[in-house]
Amino acid sequence: MTEQNGGPKTSRRKFLTSALIAGGSAAAAPFARAASPDPAITEIQPWNQELGFGVDARPYGRPSDYEAHVVRRNVEWLTASTESSVNFTPLHELDGIITPNGLCFERHHGGAAEIDPSKHRLMIHGLVEKPLVFTMEELMQFPRINRIYFLECAANSGMEWKGAQLNGCQFTHGMIHNVMYTGIPLKYLLEQAGVKPNGKWLLAEGADASGMTRSIPMFKALDDCMVAFKMNGEALRVEQGYPLRLIVPGWEGNMWIKWLRRLEVGDEPWHHREETSKYTDLMADGRARRFTWVMDAKSVITNPSPQAPIITGPGPVVLTGVAWSGHGKIKRVDVTLDGGKNWHKARLSGPSLSKSMHRFYFEFEWDGRPLLLQSRAIDETGYVQPTKDELRKIRGVNSIYHNNGIQTWYVNEQGIAENVEIS
Amino acid sequence: MTEQNGGPKTSRRKFLTSALIAGGSAAAAPFARAASPDPAITEIQPWNQELGFGVDARPYGRPSDYEAHVVRRNVEWLTASTESSVNFTPLHELDGIITPNGLCFERHHGGAAEIDPSKHRLMIHGLVEKPLVFTMEELMQFPRINRIYFLECAANSGMEWKGAQLNGCQFTHGMIHNVMYTGIPLKYLLEQAGVKPNGKWLLAEGADASGMTRSIPMFKALDDCMVAFKMNGEALRVEQGYPLRLIVPGWEGNMWIKWLRRLEVGDEPWHHREETSKYTDLMADGRARRFTWVMDAKSVITNPSPQAPIITGPGPVVLTGVAWSGHGKIKRVDVTLDGGKNWHKARLSGPSLSKSMHRFYFEFEWDGRPLLLQSRAIDETGYVQPTKDELRKIRGVNSIYHNNGIQTWYVNEQGIAENVEIS
Repeated sequence: MTEQNGGPKTSRRKFLTSALIAGGSAAAAPFARAASPDPAITEIQPWNQELGFGVDARPYGRPSDYEAHVVRRNVEWLTASTESSVNFTPLHELDGIITPNGLCFERHHGGAAEIDPSKHRLMIHGLVEKPLVFTMEELMQFPRINRIYFLECAANSGMEWKGAQLNGCQFTHGMIHNVMYTGIPLKYLLEQAGVKPNGKWLLAEGADASGMTRSIPMFKALDDCMVAFKMNGEALRVEQGYPLRLIVPGWEGNMWIKWLRRLEVGDEPWHHREETSKYTDLMADGRARRFTWVMDAKSVITNPSPQAPIITGPGPVVLTGVAWSGHGKIKRVDVTLDGGKNWHKARLSGPSLSKSMHRFYFEFEWDGRPLLLQSRAIDETGYVQPTKDELRKIRGVNSIYHNNGIQTWYVNEQGIAENVEIS
Repeated sequence: MTEQNGGPKTSRRKFLTSALIAGGSAAAAPFARAASPDPAITEIQPWNQELGFGVDARPYGRPSDYEAHVVRRNVEWLTASTESSVNFTPLHELDGIITPNGLCFERHHGGAAEIDPSKHRLMIHGLVEKPLVFTMEELMQFPRINRIYFLECAANSGMEWKGAQLNGCQFTHGMIHNVMYTGIPLKYLLEQAGVKPNGKWLLAEGADASGMTRSIPMFKALDDCMVAFKMNGEALRVEQGYPLRLIVPGWEGNMWIKWLRRLEVGDEPWHHREETSKYTDLMADGRARRFTWVMDAKSVITNPSPQAPIITGPGPVVLTGVAWSGHGKIKRVDVTLDGGKNWHKARLSGPSLSKSMHRFYFEFEWDGRPLLLQSRAIDETGYVQPTKDELRKIRGVNSIYHNNGIQTWYVNEQGIAENVEIS
């Protein structure tokens, strides 16, 4: 963990863009530093001569010991207990669009519940023709689908409302992951139960110690919600709701109820704790926004970034990052090297899927002068990711949730990056 | 491991299709067994009341203890040592199209080499204008792409040439995985070195103790080959070639050189050990097929299957499986419940990508009578997956490699499945 994250909140430097001449220019791809002959290639290494480990060594695999630093990290001062806390996905160590299961950020309200699937049940009741209770085996008799979706916590980047705080995209933007879910369209289960005409809302409840509950409007439940039991091919991880999780594509992560045990159909929202005192946005005038479900388009540059400096010096640099939108696909990502004076269209790579992370790249030739890096996502609705100041004009600075403002990294002559704000 | 795989090879039953009336009919989806009220839902479980584990408990995650049976498995009698052996992906426990990194099958010839990436180099030499040696940091300066590809060992299903042998799709078809790779198009690296006009072949060499080498024609190297360093977002696993692997989309897995350290450009193939005495197909007349690179279209039903019986009795059953082709996308998958008398079009779900696994489903209402299950893949070239007998007519039974024949599972009245052949 970087020094800045171990201590109390600090206000980071502000930058005047006019005072800086950023040093980079778009380069024609492909390109690379010409490598020189290197004696290391002819040295005998142990692994060239000694047998490696056998196929019985790791029935379930784990990363190389040289990757031991690639882990989820929590921030001790952020919450009172680790059971009601969050750890963060190391975005700066990842590439592509799939988050491996071992690195998907966690957010619990009563710790991660370790459930025996043979004892787990899902009940559907309330305003339905026929209340139902399902075992896991019975759920396996329903048709399944597979979808890749991002899950972002509403509080992702929440610390940044008041200015640049946490020094690393893992901490500023790491409350997000993107995996392939296998599950049952929720509408199939609701059709079995038979929703009554006045059934316009759904209460989803988890089996964990916090008894997490959220109200979900019926139109969303019948649209693209899923009841998932697998992620990236294998069973859900304990910390992601094993054995059953509600998937609410594009909407804030808190609604994706983990350890899902109950779905109650009602005629109005429940206004439970996690949708009133929490997960609402307090505006400047003291009133709170009600039901801010959709996660708007957002992006962040993951490399270079405070945890991932430029270590190769002046020359070719691959700038990369991720973008996503709760409204659909990402149409375009722009990046700037000079704090917004010049914007360049980034290259998207990998499958472009609705409500999924997109990976972008921008290759440039670095001349060694300081940089002010930003990315700006545009989704298929035409919505453009705003600046933090544009958000503050509308929302004030009382908010914790739904900060999708543009992030800035300052890169100095040594290639070291820092979280800053520019104005 | 099932009993059949722990002992010597056994020849499994043969079935006459005419002697069997399979009991199943295509059902209209969605459907499900109506669940009855269940007192278990009202019982208090420990996880409803006690705090779960905190966010600092598992910096890198692992599956639930209840999933401890979901592992790669090797077959002890199959090879002389575990360092030159294989373990198998538990296909019957997976869903969707992504194989999680911890469950990707392994095949080593000298064990899995644990390489220090700071000491690893990639050399490009031979018939090039400018020999080059790259560190990992220098490779990170090249533009990257992201692609999902299946990797299938040429020997997958190899034991089945002589008849139904291994009792479970993990063992008959588990030498395959499907992940998202991040890497550099190989042509970018070759362009840097400048391939001479007579450079028509490439020798790829691994840094492991076996010094694995394969000849790759230049047209493939310049087409879609990649030099990958990440799989499913994170660094390659040790057993998959950390820190660098050659990706040869759609071609036999042995060519995807792990721990890649050397690329030599030449004017003809090298005919090394692993492309002469191994990885060639011995025909009935004693001659061997030369360079059988592409993995033809293939499929297998993963559930029900010998390791995954029907446990819910007569009623709705979700039949599922995977299909793939080294020639491109899968256009269609057909399934039969009665050994080929009636074929039904399966439902594909998830992204359809070239040279990637596809997931298929077929929901049916089981009447409790025996079933003879088969699947048949058709790829975008129009190629239809053949029966094993059709393959044997052309290839004889000396082969080990490239068995893409249709697989049959017999399911008895108790829902127990067995590997059989029908004629």
